[in-house]
Amino acid sequence: MNMLALRCQGDLIVIDAGILFPGHELLGVDVIVPDLTWLVDHEDELRALILSHGHEDHVGAVPYVLSELNPPVYATAFTEALVRRKFDDHELEEEPDIRRMVPGEKFQLGCFTIEPIRVTHSTVDCVALAIETPLGVIIHTADFKIDQTPIDGKLFDLQKFAEYGQRGVLLLLSDSTNVDRSGFTPSERTVYPAFEDIFSRAENAIFVTCFSSSTHRVQQLIDLSVEFGRKVSLIGRSLTSASELAHDLGLLRIPDGVMVRPQDLSRIPKDQQLVIVSGSQGEPMSSMSRAAVGTHRHAVIDEDDIVVLSARVIPGNEKAIYRMVDHLCRRKADVRYGSQNPPLHVSGHASQEELKLILNLVRPKYFVPVHGEYRQLSQHARLAAPLRDNGLEETFILTDGESLVIDEFGARKGSEEIPVGRVLIDMGTGDEILEEMVIRDRRHISEFGVIIPIVAIDRRTGEIESGPEIISRGYVLSEDGELSLDAARRVVEKTVEGSSREEVADLGLMEEKIRTDLRRYFSRKTSRQSRPLIVPVILET
Amino acid sequence: MNMLALRCQGDLIVIDAGILFPGHELLGVDVIVPDLTWLVDHEDELRALILSHGHEDHVGAVPYVLSELNPPVYATAFTEALVRRKFDDHELEEEPDIRRMVPGEKFQLGCFTIEPIRVTHSTVDCVALAIETPLGVIIHTADFKIDQTPIDGKLFDLQKFAEYGQRGVLLLLSDSTNVDRSGFTPSERTVYPAFEDIFSRAENAIFVTCFSSSTHRVQQLIDLSVEFGRKVSLIGRSLTSASELAHDLGLLRIPDGVMVRPQDLSRIPKDQQLVIVSGSQGEPMSSMSRAAVGTHRHAVIDEDDIVVLSARVIPGNEKAIYRMVDHLCRRKADVRYGSQNPPLHVSGHASQEELKLILNLVRPKYFVPVHGEYRQLSQHARLAAPLRDNGLEETFILTDGESLVIDEFGARKGSEEIPVGRVLIDMGTGDEILEEMVIRDRRHISEFGVIIPIVAIDRRTGEIESGPEIISRGYVLSEDGELSLDAARRVVEKTVEGSSREEVADLGLMEEKIRTDLRRYFSRKTSRQSRPLIVPVILET
Repeated sequence: MNMLALRCQGDLIVIDAGILFPGHELLGVDVIVPDLTWLVDHEDELRALILSHGHEDHVGAVPYVLSELNPPVYATAFTEALVRRKFDDHELEEEPDIRRMVPGEKFQLGCFTIEPIRVTHSTVDCVALAIETPLGVIIHTADFKIDQTPIDGKLFDLQKFAEYGQRGVLLLLSDSTNVDRSGFTPSERTVYPAFEDIFSRAENAIFVTCFSSSTHRVQQLIDLSVEFGRKVSLIGRSLTSASELAHDLGLLRIPDGVMVRPQDLSRIPKDQQLVIVSGSQGEPMSSMSRAAVGTHRHAVIDEDDIVVLSARVIPGNEKAIYRMVDHLCRRKADVRYGSQNPPLHVSGHASQEELKLILNLVRPKYFVPVHGEYRQLSQHARLAAPLRDNGLEETFILTDGESLVIDEFGARKGSEEIPVGRVLIDMGTGDEILEEMVIRDRRHISEFGVIIPIVAIDRRTGEIESGPEIISRGYVLSEDGELSLDAARRVVEKTVEGSSREEVADLGLMEEKIRTDLRRYFSRKTSRQSRPLIVPVILET
Repeated sequence: MNMLALRCQGDLIVIDAGILFPGHELLGVDVIVPDLTWLVDHEDELRALILSHGHEDHVGAVPYVLSELNPPVYATAFTEALVRRKFDDHELEEEPDIRRMVPGEKFQLGCFTIEPIRVTHSTVDCVALAIETPLGVIIHTADFKIDQTPIDGKLFDLQKFAEYGQRGVLLLLSDSTNVDRSGFTPSERTVYPAFEDIFSRAENAIFVTCFSSSTHRVQQLIDLSVEFGRKVSLIGRSLTSASELAHDLGLLRIPDGVMVRPQDLSRIPKDQQLVIVSGSQGEPMSSMSRAAVGTHRHAVIDEDDIVVLSARVIPGNEKAIYRMVDHLCRRKADVRYGSQNPPLHVSGHASQEELKLILNLVRPKYFVPVHGEYRQLSQHARLAAPLRDNGLEETFILTDGESLVIDEFGARKGSEEIPVGRVLIDMGTGDEILEEMVIRDRRHISEFGVIIPIVAIDRRTGEIESGPEIISRGYVLSEDGELSLDAARRVVEKTVEGSSREEVADLGLMEEKIRTDLRRYFSRKTSRQSRPLIVPVILET
C-alpha cells in the first residue's frame, strides 16, 4: 500500500498508489487501499501522481485515487498500459489524464523538477525518481535490484545515480525489502541454467507458475521453448493481459508460431508443451490452484509432468501454497519448489551490497529507508550508519502517517499527524467499502460466535408477550445442562421481569441490560476467554 | 496429530496421541485431537498406548484419550513426567496407568514384543520402536535426527538399527519432516559457536526464545552463562515446567547459584542476564510477545539488548512472528532471527542423507513414510526408490484413515475405511467440543456477515404483529439505497403477506421461505460472492 507525498511551497506530488492484500485476520476483505483524507484536504495543491512501476502494491489503488481526485498521472509505457487496463473494470466520471514518462526526460511539476532514472527489477520499465527541489535533490529508488545482465538489455542507470551523488543529494529514500539478505541479489539471468536443465531432460509437459508481471521470466521461458521445440501457452487473465501489453510495447519478444491458445493445448503432444500459469501464491480460484485439483479445462497436469513454482512465497501464503503442492504430488506431478540450487527463482529486490552501493553512489545528507516492515527499515538504517563519515547527517525511520520536515535549519520529524487508516474493500458487495466496525464484528463472531436473545414485549403492560428466544451461531449451547438455551432464556426473563415499567419502555436501556446480564452469565459459566458477541433484540407488540 | 494403530491376532497397540494446533481457518478452536471412534469400537483389543517422545504433536491428546479409554501408557522417564504434569489440568475418573519404558528393555503386549531404541531429536529421552510380530519386525523411527555429538552424550543407537536390519525387517515407518533438505542436519552442538560469539560480545542483557522442550538448547545456554558469568532466568510456564522436570531426572545440568527467579532479575546488572523466554512462535499471550510490547513484568527488554529467536518458524506463524520482531525493533533491541551463519537454530529432524542411512541400515521389505504432508511423504517414497535393488518390495503412501494389511500373501492397502475426523476443542467454553457445523457457521459469518430477520406473527390471525426487524452483523446494510434495511424489511413483509394461513402456521416453512426470498434478494443486489448467513426468527404472539 505504498504512497508517498512530497510538498514544497504549496506544490504537492504523490509517488505511487498501491494496494495491500489482506491477511486472514481481515475477514472477507478483498483489497485494502490507502485512506485519502489528507490528500482530499490538499486537493488544490496536488500537481501529479507519479508511478514508479506496475506492481499492484504501487499502482493497484490508482482507480480508487482517481475516483476521489483527478491529478495527472505520470507513468512509463508499460506501467501506463497496465493502469489503463484497470479502467476497463472501473467507471470513472472523467477520462484519466495519463502522461508518458521516459527515463532521462525531465519534467516540471510546480517547484519540483522530476527526472525518471531507469532501474532494474522483476518487472519491466521501472524507474527511480530524482526530484529537484529548491532545497536540494531528493532521490527515491522505488523497488529495484542492480541487475548487471538484465534480460531486456536495459541497464540500471548507475551513471545517473553517480552524477546526482557528485552534485550532492539532500535526501535518499531507498528500498528495504531485502535488507536482511547479505551479498548481491543474483541476476534474473541466473534462473536460466536450472530451467535449461529441466527443458533438456523433460519427457512430459512443463508447467511454470510465476507472477503475472514477471515479464523477464516469461521471456526466458519463451526463449527456452524456442530452443527446445516446445509450444508456449499462457493461462490466467492477468498473466495473459500483462504479457500482451509487454509484447505490444516491444518489451516481450515472441517469435511467430511459438504461442498456442489454452484451448488448443490438447492437440499438442505433451512433450512439446510449456504452460505458464498464474496463481503462484495458491490463491483459491487461480488457474494454478484449479489445475492442481484437476478442475482446469485447459491446464491438465498428468503423472510425471513437471511443475515449477518460480516465485517467492509471500509471508502468510505458506499454507495455501503447500496445500497446492500437496495436490500436485497426489497427481504424481514432479514438483519443483522451495530453494533449489541453481535457483528456479531470484528476487527482484536489492540485497545488502547493492543497498550499500546505492548509498555510496548517492551519498545523501539525509536518509529515509522505505518499503519494508519496521524491522527492515531499522536494519537498513543500521546498514547506512557507517556513511556518517561520508556526509550522512541523519537517518529517519518513518512509520505510516509520520512526516519529515526539511527546511533551512535541517531535517526533523513533522509534528502534524496525517490520517493514514486503511480503507477495506469488499468486492463481493460491489466495491462496497467496509467499516473497521464491520470487520471487528466479523472477527469477534468468528472467534467466539454470536448470541441473539430476542424478546417481544407488550408496550402497554411491559410484559413479555413472546420469547425470550435465544439464537446462537458459532457458539455451543446445548438443550440442557449448565450452558443451555433454557438457562440463557431464564437469564433474559429475569432481566425483563426485574425491570420497572420505565426501564422496559426504554428499548436501548433494556437491550443493554440484557446484554450485560447475559455477558455476566456466560463469563461465569465458561472461562474468561469465551466472549460471544451478544446482540439483543426487543420487539414491541 | 500423530496416532498410529497396529493390530495383530486381536491385539491392538497405539503409538502416540498428538494434538494439532489449528490454523486461522478454524476460528476460535484451540486444539484439535484425533477422532477416537474406531479405537473406542476396538476397546477390548487395546493393549497399550506407547509414546515415542514428549512433543505435543505426539503426546498432547493423551488426557483426551484417557478420558475415553483406559489403556496402560508406556513412556520414557521425561515423556512420562511431561504427561503426568498434564493431568494436573484434567480430571480423570481413574488414575492413569503409566509404565516406564527404558531404551533396550523389551516388553510384551499380546503378540507384540516391543523394544524401545534410543534416538536423538530436539528434545530429550526420545525413542524409536522395534516391534516384533508373528510376521516379522516393524520399525517405527518416530521423530529423529542422527546427532553424532548429542549434548547429553546419549548416542543414537545405530547398532540396534543395524542389528534389526541384519536380521530382516518387514516394515519401516520413518520420519519425513525434513525430506526436502539435502545433506545431514547439523548437530545440536552447531549452535554453540554462534551463541558463544554473542555471549563474548554482548554488553547488555541477552534474551533467547526457543521451544519449551528444547532441553538441549537450554543446556547449552546455561553452560555458556556459567562460562561468561551470567545468571539465567526462565520465563514462561511450559518452559519452566519442562526444564524443572528435565532437571529432576538429571537430564539438565544446572550448577548451583546460576538460576535466578524472574522477579529477581531486576536486581541483576543487565550485562549479567541471560533470559530464556517461551513464545518463539509469536503466540499472542506468550511471555515473549508480551515482552516485545513492553507489558511483561519481569522480561524487560531495553535498547541494545540482544534478542535471539532460536526456533524454526512453523508455517502459518510467519506473520505473528514478524509482528513480534517489528515490536522488538521499535524497542531498539538487537534482534537475531532468520537464517544466520553460523546458525542460531538447527532442526531436530533428519535430512535426506540421514533418511537414506536409516533405510540402508534397516533394509525393510515394505516402507511407509510417516510424519509429513503428502508432498513430503511422496518425496520420501522417491528417496527410497533406489533401495528396490536391496530388498525393498514396495513403498506405500498412506493418508489419514488408510490402513496397510500385511499377511502371508504380502502387503496391500486395506479396504476398511477408518473414521479419522478431527475433534475441535475450544478451551474458552471449558473443554467444550465444537462441531464442524459451529466452525462452518463461524467461517461463513466471518466472510460474509450474518443477517437475522425477525418477525412476530399473531398465531390466530397469521398477521404480522411486530417487525420485521433486520439485524445484521459483519454485513453492510445502509439506512437507504438499494441494499438497505428498508428494502430487506419489505422483502420479508411481502413473504409473510403472500403466504397462506396454513403456511404461516408452519414456522419451519415460513423461516425457510424468508431465508430463500432474502437470499435471492441479496444475490440479485450484490455479486454472487456475497452470501451472508441468514437466520430468520419468527416469534408467535
